Amino acid sequence: MSEEMEMLYEKLTHCFETRKFADLRMTLLDMEPADIAQFMENNLEEKEQIMFFRLLPKELASDVFIETETDTQEALIKTFTDKELKAVIDDMFLDDTVDIIEEMPANVVKRILKNSDPENRKQINELLEYPDDSAGSLMTPEFISLSASMTVERAFDKIRQTGLNKETIYTCYVTNRKKILVGVVTVKDLLLANKEDIIENIMDANPITVETLEDKEQVAQKFSKYDFIALPVIDKEGCLVGIITVDDAVDVIQEEATEDIQKMAAILPSEKPYLKQSVWSIWMGRIPWLVLLLVTSTFTSMILVGYESRLSPVLYAFVPMLMGTAGNAGGQSSVTVIRAIAVGDVEFRDIFRVIWKELRAGFFLGLTIAIICFAKIWFLDRLYNPDITILETALISAVCFISLLMAKLVGCILPLIAKKCRLDPAVVASPLMTTIVDALSLIIYCSLAIVILI
Amino acid sequence: MSEEMEMLYEKLTHCFETRKFADLRMTLLDMEPADIAQFMENNLEEKEQIMFFRLLPKELASDVFIETETDTQEALIKTFTDKELKAVIDDMFLDDTVDIIEEMPANVVKRILKNSDPENRKQINELLEYPDDSAGSLMTPEFISLSASMTVERAFDKIRQTGLNKETIYTCYVTNRKKILVGVVTVKDLLLANKEDIIENIMDANPITVETLEDKEQVAQKFSKYDFIALPVIDKEGCLVGIITVDDAVDVIQEEATEDIQKMAAILPSEKPYLKQSVWSIWMGRIPWLVLLLVTSTFTSMILVGYESRLSPVLYAFVPMLMGTAGNAGGQSSVTVIRAIAVGDVEFRDIFRVIWKELRAGFFLGLTIAIICFAKIWFLDRLYNPDITILETALISAVCFISLLMAKLVGCILPLIAKKCRLDPAVVASPLMTTIVDALSLIIYCSLAIVILI
Repeated sequence: MSEEMEMLYEKLTHCFETRKFADLRMTLLDMEPADIAQFMENNLEEKEQIMFFRLLPKELASDVFIETETDTQEALIKTFTDKELKAVIDDMFLDDTVDIIEEMPANVVKRILKNSDPENRKQINELLEYPDDSAGSLMTPEFISLSASMTVERAFDKIRQTGLNKETIYTCYVTNRKKILVGVVTVKDLLLANKEDIIENIMDANPITVETLEDKEQVAQKFSKYDFIALPVIDKEGCLVGIITVDDAVDVIQEEATEDIQKMAAILPSEKPYLKQSVWSIWMGRIPWLVLLLVTSTFTSMILVGYESRLSPVLYAFVPMLMGTAGNAGGQSSVTVIRAIAVGDVEFRDIFRVIWKELRAGFFLGLTIAIICFAKIWFLDRLYNPDITILETALISAVCFISLLMAKLVGCILPLIAKKCRLDPAVVASPLMTTIVDALSLIIYCSLAIVILI
Repeated sequence: MSEEMEMLYEKLTHCFETRKFADLRMTLLDMEPADIAQFMENNLEEKEQIMFFRLLPKELASDVFIETETDTQEALIKTFTDKELKAVIDDMFLDDTVDIIEEMPANVVKRILKNSDPENRKQINELLEYPDDSAGSLMTPEFISLSASMTVERAFDKIRQTGLNKETIYTCYVTNRKKILVGVVTVKDLLLANKEDIIENIMDANPITVETLEDKEQVAQKFSKYDFIALPVIDKEGCLVGIITVDDAVDVIQEEATEDIQKMAAILPSEKPYLKQSVWSIWMGRIPWLVLLLVTSTFTSMILVGYESRLSPVLYAFVPMLMGTAGNAGGQSSVTVIRAIAVGDVEFRDIFRVIWKELRAGFFLGLTIAIICFAKIWFLDRLYNPDITILETALISAVCFISLLMAKLVGCILPLIAKKCRLDPAVVASPLMTTIVDALSLIIYCSLAIVILI
């Protein structure tokens, strides 16, 4: 946090504690809603939060409300009168209302819907029907629509009349009588055109669109690719049903990256910030994969017990090194491919290009590692483990090479197959990869050791 | 890729091959620059690309150029006449020009600078001086500035006159004579105000700003927090020197997430998409950590050799399981904390809160895993490894508990210390964590085994 912000927070605390509410309001008016919400949640007790929220200038209340965490929102709603609740809801954009409703318990949802305008309630219910990860769940039906035959001047009139409550006014959508999207025109186009120009002549008649059921990750990729500030959402008939703004896409990109990182580290994804998670929810997110990986490690124990009597203790000492190297190498490939799939660089049909690339990279990596491994064992490990023979050293280096190449192949193929089977590459590939690579590299090691050394 | 896009690409290929250039141009005019660039790079040979680029409608050329990969840009520039190069450069925003210059070899940079307007050249050179990861390197000096005493009507006149070449016109910046930023006003504010209103009365006089040397990751976080479409960049004196638009922030968020994921998987970050990377550059990115981790694995070998004569083969079979569980548990904590630092949820001063949380979570996780581990060994592993005693089973379960708790602590503390030392948490923490946790859990196992079983 910046020093400036810390001073501001101290001032707020001081005003609040000494009940200088006029000063408090003046200070708040100059602040961003996100900062006010952060102050409220990090510096005040629950009872104080409720009192503080009532002190907020009216025009800020719903903006601050949106920025608070789900728990705080629920606590606040419980203290609201119906009138207060209605005021906050009426002031929010519909997509924000829907986001909040999705996180609330049933009785709170009922109260929110009861206190919405009938027309809004209908739209909210429609939005709630879209799957959680679809474009429909991100969009808001509050956009500016124009008709193709309007002049620029009339378009500006319409923007001025209806713009106040729209999430963005900078991209306007041109629809026909059947609500089919026929074009897009930006306020920049309008400002740089003449007053008498007809919208049809200045609009972009082939706008990029998304469909209601499109995956929200794909939507975010479109924003990243085309640099728009809003994208229109159409249904199967081509009717414009809503828009998605870039700030929602930014959130999706952040959240999806966090989720993928969590999955790769064998954690069930959580949307809550780390410090707000309870110990119990941390336990819940981490225990499943720990248990699963503990159980699958039975394979490695079985292999080691199976070869036990026939493998010298000298060779046992290199098991962690071999498994570690194979695991690291496989992890590099699987994580690279998982991320490439997530950002849209790689699809299933690229599988042979990917394999060919990993085969070549794996060959040279394996060769390099095998040579370094040979040198390390011969010149370094012999210092504390003097019984190693040159044949054993060569064997270990060869196993390094083979298991690294194997790990690269397993690591790159698994995520692509997972994607093809409509499973989540990040969930399936990382832990499965570890188990397969661990077991395979151990089998390669033990069986080669027996063939060559006995 | 969507079917629609594939059909479009086929049409382009057909028009290009049968030399129907008028049709080709008509089709291109309806397409987004990013899609044209993608078609060019994925479907045409280098020589064809150059010919294709010359066929592009003039107004699209520089937009398509920006969207192509560095290699393609370099190849294209080499075939440009000075006049063509100047046309493309003049049409680009300065921040894009700077991005391209940063990737080009010296002789190409010279040609670009030679063919820029003298005024642009000066600004380009200033922008080039900002560090690669700073706000200054992201910004463009092309923004709309207004003065506080203007009327709304005059502001619109100014936007109409100067807006064409600005990267965004929707946020306008109010500066005084010394170029100090005094406020921000959006086109929405202007459209909803009266013509005679004075800018000073409708502007936001306390805008959120970033400083030229601020880390670009922090800048991206501000976009994500405040939902702006542009942020003003000020220098130490408070003068407005440029703006950063949300599309650049989106790219930073994507790239930083990819980089963090690569670092966590022990890969040196690369900005190129996977399929465009050469085998050699993949080798380069992966070999350093593989070698380092190979060398540090010497510790585990040393420990195993050191305890060799005193540890029964029955217990050896559980080494991979114990090291694996500790590694997974440590990875969960370190990755969680690394990501929390990256998105701004956790700072160094939260270290005791983090440790306390991980201690409690680690205690319950360790307890659960120890119980499951005990059951697994006693009921499952004894099937193929019948010599295990109940004392050994209890020992292994106890080591599971202790090393898991230890792994959680190491995993959460390391990234925070790395951050405090101004090192990159993702680079330092992940591989170092593995090495420390592997060695410690092995030492705990072997020494407890000796104390208890002998």
